[in-house]
Amino acid sequence: MDLWLIKKFITDALREDIGEEDITTQILVSPDLSYRKAKIVAKSTGILAGIEIAREIFHFLCPDTIFGNSYKDGDKFNSGDTLLELEASPQAILKGERVALNFLQRLSGIATLTGKFVKMVSPYGVKILDTRKTTPNLRLLEKYAVRVGGGLNHRINLSSGIIIKDNHIKIVGGLDKAIKIAKQKAPPFTKIEVEISNLDELKYIIENKVDMVMLDNFSYQELKEAIKTIRNKSRQTLIEVSGGVTLENAEKIAKLKPDFISVGGLTHSAAGVDISLEVI
Amino acid sequence: MDLWLIKKFITDALREDIGEEDITTQILVSPDLSYRKAKIVAKSTGILAGIEIAREIFHFLCPDTIFGNSYKDGDKFNSGDTLLELEASPQAILKGERVALNFLQRLSGIATLTGKFVKMVSPYGVKILDTRKTTPNLRLLEKYAVRVGGGLNHRINLSSGIIIKDNHIKIVGGLDKAIKIAKQKAPPFTKIEVEISNLDELKYIIENKVDMVMLDNFSYQELKEAIKTIRNKSRQTLIEVSGGVTLENAEKIAKLKPDFISVGGLTHSAAGVDISLEVI
Amino acid sequence: MDLWLIKKFITDALREDIGEEDITTQILVSPDLSYRKAKIVAKSTGILAGIEIAREIFHFLCPDTIFGNSYKDGDKFNSGDTLLELEASPQAILKGERVALNFLQRLSGIATLTGKFVKMVSPYGVKILDTRKTTPNLRLLEKYAVRVGGGLNHRINLSSGIIIKDNHIKIVGGLDKAIKIAKQKAPPFTKIEVEISNLDELKYIIENKVDMVMLDNFSYQELKEAIKTIRNKSRQTLIEVSGGVTLENAEKIAKLKPDFISVGGLTHSAAGVDISLEVI
Amino acid sequence: MDLWLIKKFITDALREDIGEEDITTQILVSPDLSYRKAKIVAKSTGILAGIEIAREIFHFLCPDTIFGNSYKDGDKFNSGDTLLELEASPQAILKGERVALNFLQRLSGIATLTGKFVKMVSPYGVKILDTRKTTPNLRLLEKYAVRVGGGLNHRINLSSGIIIKDNHIKIVGGLDKAIKIAKQKAPPFTKIEVEISNLDELKYIIENKVDMVMLDNFSYQELKEAIKTIRNKSRQTLIEVSGGVTLENAEKIAKLKPDFISVGGLTHSAAGVDISLEVI
Amino acid sequence: MDLWLIKKFITDALREDIGEEDITTQILVSPDLSYRKAKIVAKSTGILAGIEIAREIFHFLCPDTIFGNSYKDGDKFNSGDTLLELEASPQAILKGERVALNFLQRLSGIATLTGKFVKMVSPYGVKILDTRKTTPNLRLLEKYAVRVGGGLNHRINLSSGIIIKDNHIKIVGGLDKAIKIAKQKAPPFTKIEVEISNLDELKYIIENKVDMVMLDNFSYQELKEAIKTIRNKSRQTLIEVSGGVTLENAEKIAKLKPDFISVGGLTHSAAGVDISLEVI
Amino acid sequence: MDLWLIKKFITDALREDIGEEDITTQILVSPDLSYRKAKIVAKSTGILAGIEIAREIFHFLCPDTIFGNSYKDGDKFNSGDTLLELEASPQAILKGERVALNFLQRLSGIATLTGKFVKMVSPYGVKILDTRKTTPNLRLLEKYAVRVGGGLNHRINLSSGIIIKDNHIKIVGGLDKAIKIAKQKAPPFTKIEVEISNLDELKYIIENKVDMVMLDNFSYQELKEAIKTIRNKSRQTLIEVSGGVTLENAEKIAKLKPDFISVGGLTHSAAGVDISLEVI
Repeated sequence: MDLWLIKKFITDALREDIGEEDITTQILVSPDLSYRKAKIVAKSTGILAGIEIAREIFHFLCPDTIFGNSYKDGDKFNSGDTLLELEASPQAILKGERVALNFLQRLSGIATLTGKFVKMVSPYGVKILDTRKTTPNLRLLEKYAVRVGGGLNHRINLSSGIIIKDNHIKIVGGLDKAIKIAKQKAPPFTKIEVEISNLDELKYIIENKVDMVMLDNFSYQELKEAIKTIRNKSRQTLIEVSGGVTLENAEKIAKLKPDFISVGGLTHSAAGVDISLEVI
Repeated sequence: MDLWLIKKFITDALREDIGEEDITTQILVSPDLSYRKAKIVAKSTGILAGIEIAREIFHFLCPDTIFGNSYKDGDKFNSGDTLLELEASPQAILKGERVALNFLQRLSGIATLTGKFVKMVSPYGVKILDTRKTTPNLRLLEKYAVRVGGGLNHRINLSSGIIIKDNHIKIVGGLDKAIKIAKQKAPPFTKIEVEISNLDELKYIIENKVDMVMLDNFSYQELKEAIKTIRNKSRQTLIEVSGGVTLENAEKIAKLKPDFISVGGLTHSAAGVDISLEVI
Repeated sequence: MDLWLIKKFITDALREDIGEEDITTQILVSPDLSYRKAKIVAKSTGILAGIEIAREIFHFLCPDTIFGNSYKDGDKFNSGDTLLELEASPQAILKGERVALNFLQRLSGIATLTGKFVKMVSPYGVKILDTRKTTPNLRLLEKYAVRVGGGLNHRINLSSGIIIKDNHIKIVGGLDKAIKIAKQKAPPFTKIEVEISNLDELKYIIENKVDMVMLDNFSYQELKEAIKTIRNKSRQTLIEVSGGVTLENAEKIAKLKPDFISVGGLTHSAAGVDISLEVI
Repeated sequence: MDLWLIKKFITDALREDIGEEDITTQILVSPDLSYRKAKIVAKSTGILAGIEIAREIFHFLCPDTIFGNSYKDGDKFNSGDTLLELEASPQAILKGERVALNFLQRLSGIATLTGKFVKMVSPYGVKILDTRKTTPNLRLLEKYAVRVGGGLNHRINLSSGIIIKDNHIKIVGGLDKAIKIAKQKAPPFTKIEVEISNLDELKYIIENKVDMVMLDNFSYQELKEAIKTIRNKSRQTLIEVSGGVTLENAEKIAKLKPDFISVGGLTHSAAGVDISLEVI
Repeated sequence: MDLWLIKKFITDALREDIGEEDITTQILVSPDLSYRKAKIVAKSTGILAGIEIAREIFHFLCPDTIFGNSYKDGDKFNSGDTLLELEASPQAILKGERVALNFLQRLSGIATLTGKFVKMVSPYGVKILDTRKTTPNLRLLEKYAVRVGGGLNHRINLSSGIIIKDNHIKIVGGLDKAIKIAKQKAPPFTKIEVEISNLDELKYIIENKVDMVMLDNFSYQELKEAIKTIRNKSRQTLIEVSGGVTLENAEKIAKLKPDFISVGGLTHSAAGVDISLEVI
Repeated sequence: MDLWLIKKFITDALREDIGEEDITTQILVSPDLSYRKAKIVAKSTGILAGIEIAREIFHFLCPDTIFGNSYKDGDKFNSGDTLLELEASPQAILKGERVALNFLQRLSGIATLTGKFVKMVSPYGVKILDTRKTTPNLRLLEKYAVRVGGGLNHRINLSSGIIIKDNHIKIVGGLDKAIKIAKQKAPPFTKIEVEISNLDELKYIIENKVDMVMLDNFSYQELKEAIKTIRNKSRQTLIEVSGGVTLENAEKIAKLKPDFISVGGLTHSAAGVDISLEVI
């Protein structure tokens, strides 16, 4: 990820947290105090994501910050691990602490949850995909965290490719018609996926040879049948299973060997990982 | 909440989701199609937050959108409830759908979780506070969702007041010293809170009469003793309990009758509520 | 195209042209003068692109502007044709004139040039593609003008898909290696194209089955041979011819029946079409 | 030109070209690869403009970029000349290439075309002026390129001075009236020019002594007569010839010795110069 | 003045004053209360400037605001005069009050002070000019207020024309040299003024025929002599007197009949006029 | 103050003053001239505020600027004192001069005026407060200048705390009611102040125990009685005197020993201090 693409987002977040001034720090801590050491410490297990952002924050507030040992994004950590050592002006440490942790906690939460799904389905050759159910204006970072956790990104946004969903079909007036228009008009470098919600619709996929099919909210039995049919009749179509996937049922689905399982919860419901900062 | 304060945030989120263009919609759906009805439907129970933002999104994309029945922020809903009816250009419905839902799911998730804590502690006269552990650049909205769920907001940002925490104390060189400086230099309209982590530090609170004390990560026994001591010796000091509060232990803590219980998880770990949009 | 996505770009252009104030208009023309009619008139032949932007400019400067007859984007026009009639406050007409024309002239210039290429190659079933050789910060509009002129868009930007070019190959250390890495790591919804510059490299395309191949700066004889080979041995690979295509040689190339011919000059060297505004 | 004034414009252009990420580079090229040399090479003859922007782009993406030999803005180049040598991280070279070239090609195209006009008219003591017919939001750069090519800038924008044109005259209700109002109300530091379109209007210029007159779309005979009259009767008025000036007729006009010839095509129709980047 | 050019400045000012929320209004006043009348009332005498901005603020916060009687910019007012009547949502009135008044007080303060100078010098045919000594980022508005008060604007910014000042002369190495370079290189539509600080330098002005001369910090006797000399020997040069001009000495200077007297204090030291808002 | 919070404001101010280019400097001064020394010199007495901004401006325009002796914010200066020595590229000195001085003059003007009030009232233990009557979009800097001058800041903006004023009371329908609602609904970290305008309203303050009371536009006799009453009956309530306070009457009021005197004129009517820059 290019940090410069999100630099303004990071400074906006600092501005959001500081408001007009960090009045506690301004009153208690002279800007001229000599530098202090601090460490960012994990309070639970997980997969790290966002450490470059944390570094950027302290570097921004104190360009002379010295960084010591550091975990890298993608590293696994346990409770008590020191994820990053730094030495900086006390004002910078205090002003940057909360925002750095807020980024780390959320992004590591996503990477950690993604990692759990990946671990569960990868033995079956299945890959985990994210969705567009991300936090407003945080998508780039959340999709990055999914990659860090071992997942793959589905569409970044609506210009990344064509997915025909139920609401499109209702408006166009039929799945078959929608696929045909899309295949005719799509620019050359754009893939086409179709979301179907029952076995009957399978035939349109097979006839029209789309790049990818999303089996949405199928029962286990339907999934089994749909995947078998597609593998037989439309070998080049990639298969994505979607809807209601949890850590409880992911492995069972993976055994059916779709190409991908997509999980909205990776980004809309990952709990933050507990991480703190301690001045030494 | 003043919608205009976040209007750019909303259009940025739309831009994030659309990228350069919604290629599926552009190809499949004429901009001149006659208006269609759609409804936003709850897929689980919860407390609604963000409905004005959803309306704003469709209104922005299609200024002639007609809105029908609508739940209001703060309303409780059950699975299957129609939260908002609308009639708009099909392109606008398709382009706005995901972003509107992303706002609704996250904010309602926070309101719903807050509501659970509030229900649990309010019989004891205790109030739920949020923290600064919010999603970067989403704080105003997340704090709004906490209020919708019945909670109170603690500091919006670092300029909202003085809280002396462990890292400040380490840098200043002592809790007593830190409190004394703060009381002397604080501007007249600024409150002072002190975070303490053990019973020994209680004496400084009592001697110095700060506005509020945060009992952070105390054991149940320590909490009991601390609250009793403060109520006896420093009647005007408000008491906040913080650290490790969950739906499992919140009521037990509430019975000790602090003034406030603060819960970081309201904003850093609330799961999104399941809500969808259906074209009719 | 969603006008709101470029609204700021349009007002920035107005601000650029007005500077601090339109001093001529401020001094000569009272803001309260009654509305005047004006028309936008073509001074040469061409294909229109950008008329919605012109309307937006006058609407922005004078929300009560009444628009009369209007050509639509994609319409062909001859010298003397009235492209748009409007009635607005004289100040708005004078302030918006130059910027509206600057948009119209450039975008219509691109659409017109594209149309010439399309007319030349479409009888052979070949399609015209644009490139990333666009004016900085004007890409969305210029790619839109290409579509208006009958062309197709290639990648909008570097996130639209993978194209392996000569400089990538030099850095990776070999075409074969580059293709293999790309095929292994590409996300599921991303196509892969490879640029080759000689017949020897053809074999890697055929072995690795990429989605698309770009034959860059091939001689006519090489083109002939390359296209034949690919059609025989890798039927699913789309073929793009690129490099040095002009109105003089486009038809000859089209007769070789590649799928696409891409023309950088559509956007980097299209002359502006002459269009003016006359107060009536 | 102050680079900082356009720094955001440059990074916006990079952002436009990268979109969410340069997926080809991300997949193929490790960010840790050792630095590579590259050179920017001319593919035709021309006058260079924009080299500082190209340097800024690579410096921005890779602050440690080492620049070798470099042509300067205003230098003439031939096909095959190396315009700039650089050594930078491979990722930075690949990400910056297209945008750097897009700036160079357009600005050098303008400088080159301007240079041709200047060469043709300067023997007669005549100077080339640009117009406001520039690419939206690129005016500062395009006007800079005109200067690099040896031209002079006319108004930067509408606040640079007063030019009374045909549409103003129609609205005010007469040329004479318009000039009189302008002369009375103009602030002290603002010049006044009047555009006239026939010989009859000359008298108002002579009576009212404006700073400059624009002879717009005059025939050759009319030009001859107009210039003679003005030189005789209003010696201090500067003369600008405008409208339909091309490389074919510029010298003939120059022989009539107006002070200035203005050419809209410098900025609205200059073809991009062919320039490429090669990794070594 | 085009209001849209400063619309973002106005909403930024509202955002600055509201911060995250107007907590008093949010707590005390329901957003659904029926509309209330209010009036903006002068508490002293003066010349009004900024009333359109005040209207824009209330219109922005409450698009249905109804405006009643209103003074216009340039109108004189006395203490007790109602400058604007309005009827709007109580929340909008309370949120907009302070910012609307801050604009009105400052801009009317400038217009009022300008008006005093103008009244004093206009009987002698002398005009009042402003300077670039304006409040950072408020220049457009402050220069507008000067015009409202009857003054003329000098350079809007450094691109409005050439003024050669003492520091330029020191760096170039001589006044004569500086003037000669300027006259040779200045673009055709740019005026040239020279600041001189003693009588000796007068000769360069006369020899080189610049457009305007600024007599800076001259004694009264020197002024007298300088003006006489210029009027005799360089009739076309406009004369500006600058430096240390106050309401006490302006008339005396005006009697010497320079063309302009410039007063930095118009914008850097005008006291705010007392204006308040009363809910009725 | 964190300079990065206002960096964009500073560069916007530079952009405002430069416009499209500093044409005088561009024409007269080569960018390659060797560095020159310059000094910022006081032309009157005062208290310095804003020197870090001045340094930032020259550092921004010329990153290699060398700074020599420098006064610090809060230092007192006399006419003739050199406030800052610097050595930089001549272009940077000329381009930064006016903006640097504009910041210094305004902020030092505020600090100087504040210092006069502070000197007058501090012997009586009274403190000076500012108000929200600040220049639009300059509040952070102006409130900083008040602190530099020895004053304290009242609310930064409307989210800093609750002040119930006359217009709130009219809308709510009574002071007593307003106070009761505020006390019940205010978040825990927010103080409450009430503005009263006559002695009768005192009783509500005393009954309801608000944090602070503002005695607005009281006569001297009323002030005397009000302060006495509050000190007797509501010892914990802080007292602010407001309205019509000048350098003439401030000491007399201070003798009544309120806690605070607030002065709007600190920010809305402070005259700029005379400061200039001289190239050496």
